[in-house]
Amino acid sequence: MSTKKIVVIGGSAAGAKAAAKARRLDEFADITIIQKDHDLSMASCGYPYYVGGTFNDRNALLCTPAGVVRDPVFFQKAKKINALIETEVVAINRPEKSVLCRNVTSGEEQTIAYDKLVIATGARANVPPIPGVELEGITTLVSMENTDYLRQVRDNGEVKKAVVIGGGLIGIEACEALQESGIQVTVVEAVDQVLTFLDWDLAKLVENHIKSKGANVVTGVGVSEFVGEGGKLTGVKLADGTVIDCSVAVMAIGVRPNSEIGREAKLEIGKFGGITVDEYMQTSDPDIYAAGDCVEVTNRITGDKAFAPMGDLANLEGRVIGENLISGNVATFPGTIHTGICKAFDFAAGSTGLSEKAAKRIGLEGYTTVVNASPDKPGFMGAKILISKLLVDKDQRILGYQCVGLGDVSRQIATAAMAIQGKMTVTDVITSDLPYAPPFSPAIDHFIAACHIMENKLKGRMHGISSVDVKAKLDAGEKPFFLDGRNPNEFEEMEMGIGENLIPLGALRTKLDALPADKDAEIIAFCKISLRGYEAECILRAHGFTNVKVMEGGIMAWPYGRKK
Amino acid sequence: MSTKKIVVIGGSAAGAKAAAKARRLDEFADITIIQKDHDLSMASCGYPYYVGGTFNDRNALLCTPAGVVRDPVFFQKAKKINALIETEVVAINRPEKSVLCRNVTSGEEQTIAYDKLVIATGARANVPPIPGVELEGITTLVSMENTDYLRQVRDNGEVKKAVVIGGGLIGIEACEALQESGIQVTVVEAVDQVLTFLDWDLAKLVENHIKSKGANVVTGVGVSEFVGEGGKLTGVKLADGTVIDCSVAVMAIGVRPNSEIGREAKLEIGKFGGITVDEYMQTSDPDIYAAGDCVEVTNRITGDKAFAPMGDLANLEGRVIGENLISGNVATFPGTIHTGICKAFDFAAGSTGLSEKAAKRIGLEGYTTVVNASPDKPGFMGAKILISKLLVDKDQRILGYQCVGLGDVSRQIATAAMAIQGKMTVTDVITSDLPYAPPFSPAIDHFIAACHIMENKLKGRMHGISSVDVKAKLDAGEKPFFLDGRNPNEFEEMEMGIGENLIPLGALRTKLDALPADKDAEIIAFCKISLRGYEAECILRAHGFTNVKVMEGGIMAWPYGRKK
Repeated sequence: MSTKKIVVIGGSAAGAKAAAKARRLDEFADITIIQKDHDLSMASCGYPYYVGGTFNDRNALLCTPAGVVRDPVFFQKAKKINALIETEVVAINRPEKSVLCRNVTSGEEQTIAYDKLVIATGARANVPPIPGVELEGITTLVSMENTDYLRQVRDNGEVKKAVVIGGGLIGIEACEALQESGIQVTVVEAVDQVLTFLDWDLAKLVENHIKSKGANVVTGVGVSEFVGEGGKLTGVKLADGTVIDCSVAVMAIGVRPNSEIGREAKLEIGKFGGITVDEYMQTSDPDIYAAGDCVEVTNRITGDKAFAPMGDLANLEGRVIGENLISGNVATFPGTIHTGICKAFDFAAGSTGLSEKAAKRIGLEGYTTVVNASPDKPGFMGAKILISKLLVDKDQRILGYQCVGLGDVSRQIATAAMAIQGKMTVTDVITSDLPYAPPFSPAIDHFIAACHIMENKLKGRMHGISSVDVKAKLDAGEKPFFLDGRNPNEFEEMEMGIGENLIPLGALRTKLDALPADKDAEIIAFCKISLRGYEAECILRAHGFTNVKVMEGGIMAWPYGRKK
Repeated sequence: MSTKKIVVIGGSAAGAKAAAKARRLDEFADITIIQKDHDLSMASCGYPYYVGGTFNDRNALLCTPAGVVRDPVFFQKAKKINALIETEVVAINRPEKSVLCRNVTSGEEQTIAYDKLVIATGARANVPPIPGVELEGITTLVSMENTDYLRQVRDNGEVKKAVVIGGGLIGIEACEALQESGIQVTVVEAVDQVLTFLDWDLAKLVENHIKSKGANVVTGVGVSEFVGEGGKLTGVKLADGTVIDCSVAVMAIGVRPNSEIGREAKLEIGKFGGITVDEYMQTSDPDIYAAGDCVEVTNRITGDKAFAPMGDLANLEGRVIGENLISGNVATFPGTIHTGICKAFDFAAGSTGLSEKAAKRIGLEGYTTVVNASPDKPGFMGAKILISKLLVDKDQRILGYQCVGLGDVSRQIATAAMAIQGKMTVTDVITSDLPYAPPFSPAIDHFIAACHIMENKLKGRMHGISSVDVKAKLDAGEKPFFLDGRNPNEFEEMEMGIGENLIPLGALRTKLDALPADKDAEIIAFCKISLRGYEAECILRAHGFTNVKVMEGGIMAWPYGRKK
């Protein structure tokens, strides 16, 4: 048996995982990682938390759980992997099965032969050619260098104002990190919402929360220019002419696959610019695999290709490659359902599967959504309200779930992700046996509750209307009869101010004469979370009212302003 | 359409839910709840948290989320449900379709006719006739009355020592509540472990944690007598003669179905003493449904009947009944997979599906288990170690998962519960797309990691040995070669003291001569969590060692004492 020569380009998540897995399966393979940066196996998803002071030991981003920095010595000793750092691959010579690489400092070149090659070159930040982009103070947050720069900004305390351009995952994390460092942050997002993996209505709740923490958020307007003095950033000019003063700007407008080396080697490239791979993570060249942020994978719901630059997927893909490098194509990676989660101060926001926006984009027909606002625990255990949106297809199969709020979003999204991957339907979930005890869950788990509401909607018992559609009616000057089913003391504390009629649910049956005389008049019922709103609909329909709707999620899911 | 008369016996979880659901589906049904206690819809799972001072407002156990106490007035006004409290059902007259009930104070009797009857009488605490059981100071923790008593014990601060008899869910929660109230607690459990839904090895980790919080735990010995003076409890005498001083004892040795009323009405009763119901939650009388702790449901994994007295299931079952009461048998309850979770100080312990013990009990053949110790988050985010045990059947289908530790056990058990209910296999889980971000998860989720280890084991790459089997070898005087693959600084901090040989993984390849000369000698490798232990096995097998095993879960899963 001759020694297998494996070369891995890229030593962060996917590459390091593929190499380590291959090593475990073949102690005698000759494995080399070629890494352009100085560092290896960086925990890049942790950068914002180091910037924001969640922890102060920079090495923690580079260490094993036992506290050993994953440097070339570690890779050699613990993994018997040859890690060339500060070394760039200049070209792949597919006919000769070799890579030409160059030390970024010395310029020294060498050719390394491979039997199997892995490309795990990751992604690079999008930095469009906005005038002034070269000014001092403008950075991204995708490298240790960026991280060190922003951490220094935190530590020296001189910067008072910063702008984060882009309201995606990294943008929101950067916003939190800098705002928590005592810097006044403004997030500027060109589209009409932050966190585009969420639908607008849930994203708006996150935006409201970020603002409540003192950060500014501007949506729907792009950046036209960086303004500076003496080569240093002094402000960000928006397309509407506004200038936001700042001395630091973080560009966080997404990443794109760093696939040039594959493109130059004439590997097949997909529509998102990522290297095309099959289910074995094999490129169009059978001797070359690719994984992580430089590839496109399959969207398991739509079957289309997707760009899903997530650290967890990179690791899982790398593991599949490690297996296939040694054992032939035995392991497969089925793709992504676009599961993600993001901390935004003490809020969390997560999504799995299709958002309504995504469903519309692919032209999915016959789907139904429902918004659920309900607590993550019993009230006496310090419950926090979660707001979620469930999407099912015409066969009532769970296809998407989003959840935001102060509570335990992580469990919610994990539960829903498994429901989607297990191809479960509403009927499967409504009687699920999930872990219940007061410190962890209400008696009826929030996700199960969302499926209960969906069932009521699908069975025609609850006629839902979204907050967005209610707002559109108000904006159009329509005057439905708004029925607020809460108690007077709750109304005192919190009031929509949309001309609603307060009729506590407990009094509704005796106050039917306060309802419109026309039984076909449009009535929109709600309460804090719209459970009583739903009960009101049941009562009113039984009494002959034909056009009753429930504002889904109630006041807690209302993303607009309210009277108080 | 004549008005449907629905009578519900029991107004806690299942009964109240069935009644409320029926009301939403039929505004004009005549619905009566008959409740023996004074209170309705009590959040009984919350009792220990009120006792322990997690919250101080007793009404929170009885309120809606909007703060309204669920008393008969509330039921009448908000639900149009007639709730008779302090009223006991004396007999069910099935031929006449009526119940005879009696006010527990006045003794006044009345007969109430039904079209459909629901029995939701719950469970009662097991209180065996131990000598002295009538002494003052002995209580259970299953009613508001018990709760008020124990809360008073906390508040007046006179009790210094308490004994909790039974180490199940309620026992452990009672232990925490009293210990956190400044009382020295001893838990006495007759079998050899606490929390019998866990396997012994994981339960022992929970026991160790409880002891680390200052409580005593005695297992494997029963109570023979309550000792008292002047009618008041002064101690608990164990079967081995030990007397534990205490002035309060909480009996928490399980509950049994409160099914007498059904038995007397000649309804079919199951092997656990619960009322037999079918998938519609219908008893042997088609006009009588039953739900909650008084019934037996189906174990979805084994198909056998099960007693599963859990508040979440009671609610889900009640909802199914509500539907079937109004619409005929349209809704089904598929049963339980015995999902449960318990807080034990800052530990959590959960389980779903089959434990190894349960698998053995039912004679399941060809199953495999694996123990995984690994963090719930990245190290830099304050990771906590979770210890879990996964069980798969011969077809690699996920059948059971237990998890204990300081970290996010709730998400773990919810994820696994969905995997079981979705009939997923190891192959399905190893590439799952779960929500990842550093505040919520490591890049490879702990449950996915458990499936990765299982795959390695199933493919014959990792030969695991449990901590229990290692201990048995030590106790039998066997001398396998123990290989600790950690670094010297880790060894300084924590040492097993079982004659292990410290060979850091990074040095192993150069120190093969320190291993036994006999390549067939038994070698047991481990480290803190046994990832390096596994890597050591890979290296050693590649170098011809034939009998290498990995101690599953490493030192973190070792439930016995260690040198330091």
